[in-house]
Amino acid sequence: MNTPGFTGADLDRADNLRQDAKKIAALAAHPNARLLNLAGLDPVLDDTGAMTWSPLPLGETNLIFLGLRGAIPHFAPIVPVQPGQRAWSVFAILNRMTPADAAIWGAARSLLEWHGRHAFCANCGAPSEVFRAGWGRRCAVCAAEHFPRVDPVVIMLAEHDGRVFLARQAQYPQGRFSALAGFVEPGESVEEAVARELMEEAAIEASDVRYVASQPWPFPGQLMIACMAQAASDRIVLDTTELEEGFWATRGDVAAALAGEAGARFLAPPPFAIAHFLLSHWIGG
Amino acid sequence: MNTPGFTGADLDRADNLRQDAKKIAALAAHPNARLLNLAGLDPVLDDTGAMTWSPLPLGETNLIFLGLRGAIPHFAPIVPVQPGQRAWSVFAILNRMTPADAAIWGAARSLLEWHGRHAFCANCGAPSEVFRAGWGRRCAVCAAEHFPRVDPVVIMLAEHDGRVFLARQAQYPQGRFSALAGFVEPGESVEEAVARELMEEAAIEASDVRYVASQPWPFPGQLMIACMAQAASDRIVLDTTELEEGFWATRGDVAAALAGEAGARFLAPPPFAIAHFLLSHWIGG
Repeated sequence: MNTPGFTGADLDRADNLRQDAKKIAALAAHPNARLLNLAGLDPVLDDTGAMTWSPLPLGETNLIFLGLRGAIPHFAPIVPVQPGQRAWSVFAILNRMTPADAAIWGAARSLLEWHGRHAFCANCGAPSEVFRAGWGRRCAVCAAEHFPRVDPVVIMLAEHDGRVFLARQAQYPQGRFSALAGFVEPGESVEEAVARELMEEAAIEASDVRYVASQPWPFPGQLMIACMAQAASDRIVLDTTELEEGFWATRGDVAAALAGEAGARFLAPPPFAIAHFLLSHWIGG
Repeated sequence: MNTPGFTGADLDRADNLRQDAKKIAALAAHPNARLLNLAGLDPVLDDTGAMTWSPLPLGETNLIFLGLRGAIPHFAPIVPVQPGQRAWSVFAILNRMTPADAAIWGAARSLLEWHGRHAFCANCGAPSEVFRAGWGRRCAVCAAEHFPRVDPVVIMLAEHDGRVFLARQAQYPQGRFSALAGFVEPGESVEEAVARELMEEAAIEASDVRYVASQPWPFPGQLMIACMAQAASDRIVLDTTELEEGFWATRGDVAAALAGEAGARFLAPPPFAIAHFLLSHWIGG
């Protein structure tokens, strides 16, 4: 895979139109306007693996404006969400999707989860209303405006002597190992977050943090920032409250896992995860 | 400046302790525990420009645990905030501070603004309570947990033929020009956000987006992600709802501005802003 998953959406977001409710209503009334088909929060694919859309019913207003493809407006329905429910089943669907389709669906899913957990104004407690064509909420009482969260997360490979450190959480599928990761906190840079997470999770002293790539991750709404770092040694102390096992992988280990070889030392993260991209980058570079 | 502003805090966040209320109470009772001195939200400096701290009064619980320096616990008070009030006056104070002090204060300021705007649970509307030593809020009614926002923002220089595009917003100080910037949205990567913002704000077609550096920005809580990009041409169409003027700056223009020369073509952003770091990086590279 040449680009990270969930990128390459081929819609123009036309976000300058979002604040103009009249224009958005006119777009929703466009005879060729399209509505994303969802089963719960999951996309509905056709036999070829393409994401499917339906004509937009006239008068429908509970909508997210996803953008334009040429002159054709594309929308997603604002559907109810069971909070905190992560559907592992969608991973099999994602494996059949193009990155561009996954990117469009990912934006919709992130917004739907956010609406689901933000029906009330955090500033005053009153119910809030959807505005900006689904890209915000406004409080009718205190007028506070709220915008969707995008939570930056660092994900990184610490390298030492030609090997990188991989680990697994208890809830991973059997055999799966991946890069360490953690949320960027208030008051720290990407580079500082990488060093802190490596120290906390594996007692790795990191230097020379280098950015590699980024992708959105719609479970529920992270910005994944992938980095490499140099480890001062290969001694580790695993934080067993977060991780159950870890090891230093060679380029051969990683190449076998990415190729899905039967004898591979570990099961690689799925292709649409940036950990997969990061591992490919490392063995290629 | 060799590192971006608001980085290099010399406290160990010891964030594994935050969820242990007993340990935090013990740290607050430490005879040498220190409490950050604030005037409103601003830091209080001594004559040398160092940030000042006071002994922590026994029994004080309305606290953010900032971290440890050696064995000494450092806290900030949770003070009330006037929402949406950006204190430009603090910029003069910041010019006198070390990056490490600014980083510690920046984390506290971000958290204080977040608490100020999030006294209620967005999930159910009930009042929420501080937990995790000031690094979260929890709803007593629905048990939803809420964590401080960190909003990723891209800030970038588009380069064409040895010049970079700078622009000014109407509310900037007179003569100030800076890099374009904008929030990363759900469903896009850093690279896609850079391309979208350059297109929207100046009709610049961008390619070859490269990450340069990052910093936290505590007004109120952004993660600034600084990038370079190549512009396909030097034709621009300014979005005059956001920007009032722009121009392509040469390395000479930028060097004169960063040096604060009287005849400089523009006033540079302040040293603690990542735009300053990005411009320095560009003329150095």
